[in-house]
This record gives sequence, C-alpha cells and structure tokens, in this order.
Amino acid sequence: MSDVSDWWRTSIIEMEPGRIALRGTPIEQIIGKMGFAETIWLLVMGERIEGPRAALFEAALVSAVDHGPQAPSIAAARMAATCGIGLQSAMATGLNMLGDVHGGAGEQAVALFGACAGLEGSELEAVLADWRARNGKYLPGFGHRFHKPVDPRAPCLLSLVDAAAAEGAVTGRHAASARAIGALLAQQRGAPVPLNIDGATAVIYAELGCPAALARGFFGLSRSVGLLAHAWEQTEQGGRNKGPTPPRYLWTHDAG
Amino acid sequence: MSDVSDWWRTSIIEMEPGRIALRGTPIEQIIGKMGFAETIWLLVMGERIEGPRAALFEAALVSAVDHGPQAPSIAAARMAATCGIGLQSAMATGLNMLGDVHGGAGEQAVALFGACAGLEGSELEAVLADWRARNGKYLPGFGHRFHKPVDPRAPCLLSLVDAAAAEGAVTGRHAASARAIGALLAQQRGAPVPLNIDGATAVIYAELGCPAALARGFFGLSRSVGLLAHAWEQTEQGGRNKGPTPPRYLWTHDAG
Amino acid sequence: MSDVSDWWRTSIIEMEPGRIALRGTPIEQIIGKMGFAETIWLLVMGERIEGPRAALFEAALVSAVDHGPQAPSIAAARMAATCGIGLQSAMATGLNMLGDVHGGAGEQAVALFGACAGLEGSELEAVLADWRARNGKYLPGFGHRFHKPVDPRAPCLLSLVDAAAAEGAVTGRHAASARAIGALLAQQRGAPVPLNIDGATAVIYAELGCPAALARGFFGLSRSVGLLAHAWEQTEQGGRNKGPTPPRYLWTHDAG
Amino acid sequence: MSDVSDWWRTSIIEMEPGRIALRGTPIEQIIGKMGFAETIWLLVMGERIEGPRAALFEAALVSAVDHGPQAPSIAAARMAATCGIGLQSAMATGLNMLGDVHGGAGEQAVALFGACAGLEGSELEAVLADWRARNGKYLPGFGHRFHKPVDPRAPCLLSLVDAAAAEGAVTGRHAASARAIGALLAQQRGAPVPLNIDGATAVIYAELGCPAALARGFFGLSRSVGLLAHAWEQTEQGGRNKGPTPPRYLWTHDAG
Repeated sequence: MSDVSDWWRTSIIEMEPGRIALRGTPIEQIIGKMGFAETIWLLVMGERIEGPRAALFEAALVSAVDHGPQAPSIAAARMAATCGIGLQSAMATGLNMLGDVHGGAGEQAVALFGACAGLEGSELEAVLADWRARNGKYLPGFGHRFHKPVDPRAPCLLSLVDAAAAEGAVTGRHAASARAIGALLAQQRGAPVPLNIDGATAVIYAELGCPAALARGFFGLSRSVGLLAHAWEQTEQGGRNKGPTPPRYLWTHDAG
Repeated sequence: MSDVSDWWRTSIIEMEPGRIALRGTPIEQIIGKMGFAETIWLLVMGERIEGPRAALFEAALVSAVDHGPQAPSIAAARMAATCGIGLQSAMATGLNMLGDVHGGAGEQAVALFGACAGLEGSELEAVLADWRARNGKYLPGFGHRFHKPVDPRAPCLLSLVDAAAAEGAVTGRHAASARAIGALLAQQRGAPVPLNIDGATAVIYAELGCPAALARGFFGLSRSVGLLAHAWEQTEQGGRNKGPTPPRYLWTHDAG
Repeated sequence: MSDVSDWWRTSIIEMEPGRIALRGTPIEQIIGKMGFAETIWLLVMGERIEGPRAALFEAALVSAVDHGPQAPSIAAARMAATCGIGLQSAMATGLNMLGDVHGGAGEQAVALFGACAGLEGSELEAVLADWRARNGKYLPGFGHRFHKPVDPRAPCLLSLVDAAAAEGAVTGRHAASARAIGALLAQQRGAPVPLNIDGATAVIYAELGCPAALARGFFGLSRSVGLLAHAWEQTEQGGRNKGPTPPRYLWTHDAG
Repeated sequence: MSDVSDWWRTSIIEMEPGRIALRGTPIEQIIGKMGFAETIWLLVMGERIEGPRAALFEAALVSAVDHGPQAPSIAAARMAATCGIGLQSAMATGLNMLGDVHGGAGEQAVALFGACAGLEGSELEAVLADWRARNGKYLPGFGHRFHKPVDPRAPCLLSLVDAAAAEGAVTGRHAASARAIGALLAQQRGAPVPLNIDGATAVIYAELGCPAALARGFFGLSRSVGLLAHAWEQTEQGGRNKGPTPPRYLWTHDAG
C-alpha cells in the first residue's frame, strides 16, 4: 500500500500555511510581476517564457478564443446557460466537447510539422503520403471551408513567427515546414491550400518546443474564454431550455 | 486529521476480496434475481421495492427516457458525438445540462404536491398563492406548449397510480393533490391545464416517499437512456463538428 | 445549406403534439407494460428484447451498478456533491471519467471474444498473440487484483448465460470463447486467471449481438446508478469541498 | 416559429469568410497587439481594459491558477487523466466541480463588498448581521484554516489595488469596504480574520465594475490553468484508475 502522503505527487505547486510557491517561485514574486500568459507557461511547462517567445505564446492564446456559436462547444455553453446550471458548469459542458475532431487538429499539426521538419522534395512527399495512408487524406492545419480564401488569423500569426525567428528567438523550422507542406499541397491540388488557425497556432507551439498533446490543452484554455463570454451573454439574454434549433413549437420549462 | 479509512463512508456497498454486497445483500442474491429498476431503488433508497410499488417506479423511469433532439440535453449528446470524444463523455455532456430549468420541474413538483397534500378550497388556494409569490406564476408539473391538449404520458402514469392506490400499495394522496391543483388551475384560467410528464412522475415519486431532490436524480437516470441512444445513433450516422443549426457555410474539422 | 428540418435525423423517437412513439411504438403501449431494461434495449438497439435474452441484459445492467468510492468515477461524484453543484452535474462529473481505462475493458472484451469465437488450440494462441502485440500483455476481461480468487459477479453471470444457451436463447459461442481464453491463460501462467466483471458482462453483450462500443455505453448507464446513489448519500452526509484524501489541514470553503 | 438566423444572437464575434472581428475589432488588430488578459476582458465584458486596471485584472487571474491537488477540482482533473479520457475532458471534469461551495465565494464576496461599500459603524454592523441571518455565520472572502496567519496572495493583491487607487485608476471603495469588514470581524472575534484569496480577488473584480456572477467565471478561467497543468503532469506520470485515496489493495484496469 502506498503512503497517503505521496498518492498525488506534484512539482507544480508547493504549499505550507502562509506560503505558496508555483514551480518553486513564491507567489508574491509572481502576482503583479508576471503576466497571465507567462504564468500559464510557467505552471504548465515548468519554465519561464520571456520576450519574443512569450509574445508568440500570448498571440496563440489570443487568436483562438472564439469562433462563434456555430461551433458545437460554444453553442453547448449557450444551451447549458439556459438550462439552470451554474456558469462554470456551462463552461465545462462546452470544454468537454473539445475532442479529437473539435479542436484536435492543433495537436495533430504539431506532430505533422515535427515529422516534416527540414524535409523537402521527395522526402517530404514520402512523409506526407505515409501520414495520409495512416490518417486519411486531409492534412491537419490546412484548408478551411468557411474562411476563403484565407483565415485572417493565420498570416498574422505566421508573420509574428517570422519576426521572432529573425531575432533568433525561435528557429523558424516549423514555419518553414508548414510552408513547404502548403506549397506541396497547392501544387498537388492546383490551387492554394492556406494554413488555418489550427495550423498557425501549431507552428507556434512547435517552435516553442511544446509537446503536441499540450497544443490541444492550450487550445482548450484559449477557447474557454469564448465559452465564458458566450455563456454569460446568453445568461444575460435569458431564455429557457434553448435547444439546438428553433423548434417548430415553443418548448416550455415544464417539458420533461 | 481524519483517518484515511473513514474519509468516504458508505452504506451502499461493502467489499472484500471475493465479496460484494449491495445494501447488505450479497451480489449473488441480486444478479439474475432482481430487476434493474428494483436494484436502482435498493441502491439509491436503501430499501426493497416490490409489487405494485416497483411497477410504479419502473413506469416512471420508462416514461422519461427521451423527448427528442429538440431538448438541449439530447442535442448536446448528439453534438458531442460528432466532436471526437468518447460515448460516455457524450452522455455526460448531455446529463450535465440537466439543471434547475431543464429537468428540474420534477423536484419542484414533488415539493409542491407535498405542500398541498390533503388541502382543498381556500387552504389550497392560499398555499398555491404563497408558492407563486415565492417562485413565479408557473406551477411545476402543469401545462405543456408542445403536447396539446395533453401529454400522453401523464394519464398513463396517473391511471397506474390509481390502480396501485386501489390495491392499497400507495395512499393516492399525492395523485389527489395533483388533481386538486389541476382543477383549481383550470378554474382560474377557464381552460384545462393538464398535468405534464414532470408532474405525473412527481406524483409517483411522492407516492413512493422519495425525497424531492431524488426525483431529479431519477429523471437523470431515465434520460441517460435517451442520451445513450441518441449519442450512439449520431455516432453511427457520422458527421463532424455538428453545431446547433445548419450553418450557412459548411464547417470543417480544421476550423479552430 | 441543409434544410433545418433534417439537421438532426432520428428513428428513436417521433413526436407530434399529444403523441410520442419510441421506435414506432406509442408510449402508451410502453409505460406500465415494458420494463426499464427492455425499454433501454428498445431505445438504444431499436428492437424488442424478451424472455431469457431480456433477463441476461437485465443481469448485466444490474451487476455493474457500483464498485465503491475507491473507483475514480464514484469518488468524483461524491467529491462533486460537496462542491455546490447540482445532483445531475455530480453524476455527470463521474460519468465523464469513464474512458478507455476506467470502464473501457468491456468494449475491448466484446471485440476480443468476437475475434476468438470458435477458435481453439494454435489458432486461438495466434489470435491472442496478435492481440497482445497490438494492445499490450493484459487481455481485457480477465484477472482482478482485488477480487481474489474470483470476482463473485462473474460466475453468476456466466451461469445465466449457460442457462440461456441451454434454452437456445443465445448460442453460447462467446461464453465458450471466454472459457477457452481463460483456460489458455491459466495454462500460460500456471495459475487460474478468472473472468472479471468486464469480461462476464462482455460475454452477455456479445451473446446478445450488441456492438462492442455499446458495451461501454451500457456500462455507463449501469454505473450511473451507483453515481446517483453515492452522490446522494454524500449530499445527505454533508461536507464541503471534500478533496481526494484527508488533507493534513482542514480545507475551508473560503479557499480559492 | 423564430427565424433560424437569429436563434443565437451575439455581439461577441462577427464572422464572414476571411473576416473575424471580436467585439467589433478585426482580429488582425488584436493578435500580437493585445495581451491575453486584455483579450479576455474585451471578449467577456465587451470593453477595453488598459493600464493599471488591466494590471489589476491580470493579477487577479494570475493569483488563483492553482491551489494544489487537495482541492477537489484539481484532484478530479488528475483522477480523470488516469481514466483514459482526453486532456480537455479531464480539464472539464475539474471545471465542472466548481460550484457554490468550491470557488463560489468570490461571487458572494463581490456582492458583500457592494452591499457594504461606504458603510461603517452601526450601519455596517447591521448589513453584516442581515447578511449572516440570510446566509450563515461565515462571511465570504475572510478567514482560511490552512493559510495561517495569512494567505500570502491577499496582501499582494490588496497593495496592487491601493496603488491603482492612488493613481485614480479605481476608487478604492471596495478595498476600504473589505478592510472595514475585516476590522469589524477582528473586533467581534478578538483575533485577526484576514482577507483570503476569494476576498482579495473579489475586491479587484468589484473595483473593476465586474458583475458578481462573473467573478466566479473569471475564477474558473484562472483555475483552468491549474487544471491543465495537473492533468498534464498526471498524464506524464502515468497511473491507471487513480482513485481518491490509496486503496488498501491495488486497483486494476480490469475492475468494473
């Protein structure tokens, strides 16, 4: 039998009465001195992030906060807000909808860029062909049926990466990898296949050395902002038991 | 500091290696010998339910399993099934939407029937007036904008209660209470205000001596059946990131 | 753009004002006439289940309702009940914890039994070796570190399957498959490796022709009973912010 | 029947193909130009926050990111991470545990400070007496059984508020209110009753003009950082089906 005292082991936080340290730094040296994005990186990754690298991380977090109530997660948070559960539970309802399909492409794109880093020509083609054989024809991080010709967030993010690479803050390898894949895709389809938001944030997470799985976690944090905003807006608008589409008949609070 | 061994105390289950007892009964005497509804009552209420009382409980569970994808909970489970999370998480997403507004009327109706039991005339009017002053004009368990003139489930359930009362299995007090309230409502509005499903199941839960809060819990168990059925049907239909309404533009799996 | 009216398509339920039909049967012919287990099968599987087959399904549902607060899901529901969220959200919190690891073995075992059905000797060995090469050394549905020598639920369930097979209600193929695997395991390890609850319920689900993925869904429905019972017991016991272990220091409701 | 197009109405985001605006500002003017905390405020509150006010908001978000695995929410996220569900669902499981009791004191404290703002002496005593008569003897935002003599986060946050008030960025009314209540409490108990983290962040949210209910929402966003960090740390540590306490017997993945 394990000792109770080590059942949960963590290096994230240390606490004694009157003392809290995050990753070894007393909380008094963090509050008011470190930004929210930097604190997120410290807590999750266990290291400091500063300067242009911190700016890249912050831009990635900022860019994915919302994509409107057509997204299942955002709609779910709004629906939940009309069902008589708390604000946090409404957020949790939406967050729980993020999975392999909804919000999962970022993780896959980080893995893809890593697998393709430094490759070109036939080597790159071989890796992409192998990826598709295992995962299907769509490459994560590219293309968007709504945002045509281009998702406005992607070029913004890529130019920030370029600037950071020019300063030597990141290598730019994964941005190059994303561009090489995009060029190959465009050639194969005979039309541009631009990077989308999942791809563009994945470039940042890959450049920052973040594990692929965490790209998904950071997306969840970012999107939680939109979940809160929409759950709150719906709460203030009111409404009861708002279902997914306007029913032909009004739905009442009495309906089982 | 508490002793670890009593941190969670339960009389629901006892286990030793090779032995499991639910509420004191060895599991071997339950499996194959007790129905699912009876087991639910045993586990949750801590006592046996049998004969006409068991039949009433089973009827209440059966009656509320589903109300279609217009209900936010059912829609949420279907949406979740297209987002790449597991079947249980899709069910949990829907179950989490049941709150004070969605599926909460049963609890309120049990409380209302209890408050009105045995009353009539001006006494009943006074209790209802007081209820409305505290909770708003709608009385839980009555009326339905969709099922007009009447929710088909309610008379079925009420007639089962009447039969059980005729056998002496329940008192019929709460059924009488529900009818008295309904009659008064009809008189006040000048039109019939029939009992709905929340009201009809609440009559059963009240007759069986179930705490009001558990009426909501049993509703959640019952509706979980519909959540599973719809999440599974949607899984088999496929679809990716199905939002709440057909968007004007197709939504892609790549969209952040 | 799709037509709104067919955005959600279902054959589970049909509704018009005053009319509800489940899988084509008017609800009035179900309430009071069909058991809860039979209704679950009807709604989820889209067909009637009766007689010995219905009894098997009911036994599987009954057998998995609870395994005590050491299980993460049950503990989570109790913890949630001390945090000030509703009863349904407490249940959902526990249900959401059921995943590939916790409660997922039933699905895997249905698949395993299907893959091994009718095999013996070297053919069976080859299939198991291949399974292990892909999934790791543990076979789903066998062995239990707590219930030694045997999980009391498993022999109960198997004997019900045997009786149903003797009546011709099921083929008994998957029970035979489970026994053949168990015998081979015992021979390989030089010690008995008994079927556990996931394995025993998987035998039933496989015999009933239920898709592997639904074995997990039915487990979720069954365990939801324990989630409700424990969340409710904890609610009545009280307690605030009960964490996972008795902390060295008491935790207060004020703690952020 | 409502028109589908206005079923969800939002002023949070506007989208057209190739265009996204948050609260009316094109996303290209936000990414790389606005911090994460400022973006959160913009999206949720619908207005810009800048300078010392933005710093206060950021400090509040930073201060509540974690309080270790003894907190039910954090423990639940870690437990979930051992059950085979995705990272986002593990986060959602923890977030869903935040309710009236766990993480709800901030909302109550904002309301309390608002009710007491500008009062002193017998007027203050009367308001507090009335509060306690309605809500129980504990005042939200004060006292901590773990952090004695004082929660280190509270004085940090209060001094930031004082500095901002000195600059005229906030009025300091709610900080004064919190101090007046604390002084009265100390006098009544004959011992210091320091502000805790819920109280200190509530001072900030109240000073910034944030509705009480949103204090809880912002706490959820903040704590989601800890949920992610702990779920990820546990994922990397491994473990299967980690329950709430080290059981006397090891628990296996096969256990139902």
